[in-house]
Amino acid sequence: MIDYLRGVDNDVNIQFLTVPSKYGNNPVLERLKQSMKNLEIKYMFESKDEIQQFQIHAKIIICDESSIYLGSANFRDTSILYNLESGLVSNDEKLINEYVSIYDDIYSAI
Amino acid sequence: MIDYLRGVDNDVNIQFLTVPSKYGNNPVLERLKQSMKNLEIKYMFESKDEIQQFQIHAKIIICDESSIYLGSANFRDTSILYNLESGLVSNDEKLINEYVSIYDDIYSAI
Repeated sequence: MIDYLRGVDNDVNIQFLTVPSKYGNNPVLERLKQSMKNLEIKYMFESKDEIQQFQIHAKIIICDESSIYLGSANFRDTSILYNLESGLVSNDEKLINEYVSIYDDIYSAI
Repeated sequence: MIDYLRGVDNDVNIQFLTVPSKYGNNPVLERLKQSMKNLEIKYMFESKDEIQQFQIHAKIIICDESSIYLGSANFRDTSILYNLESGLVSNDEKLINEYVSIYDDIYSAI
């Protein structure tokens, strides 16, 4: 995922929504952000007594509101190289619009 | 998932493909199988020095080769009740046929 982000052109804006680990923000992503002005990262969390109450377990990539990836694979080596995963890429407008709408609601509220 | 399986009619055949935990076969599923003649369970694994080499991380439900669920959610409380998950249900023939074909290849080889 990091290598993929690194390869994205400067004029493509990227929004990245994830959760912090128990140690806080992701240090690799945070370093990457310093060298990429087109990368915005938001962390979603709700904690109670310093314990995180839920996980973002969704795995989605939406490009230009014209295609979407949806599936089981985490964006890391274990999933990409070793696990048996399932997923799809779709250009279905209705599907994309629904996910863009949910995503925008969540992202803009953080 | 267990409650859902319990509710399935006797004349509907169910194939369940999963991986063993490090303690072996899933005891809840195995007990359920004893009371459900229409439930078949297969475990997929490849071990080396007693260590499992990969995980089934795919989460798919296919019904009657006419609809498919595909997504990030594990079939357990944490995913269904607490996590932010992503997924879809589709009746797309091409998508279903591709997944049925991959699934059948794997399932019949075990």
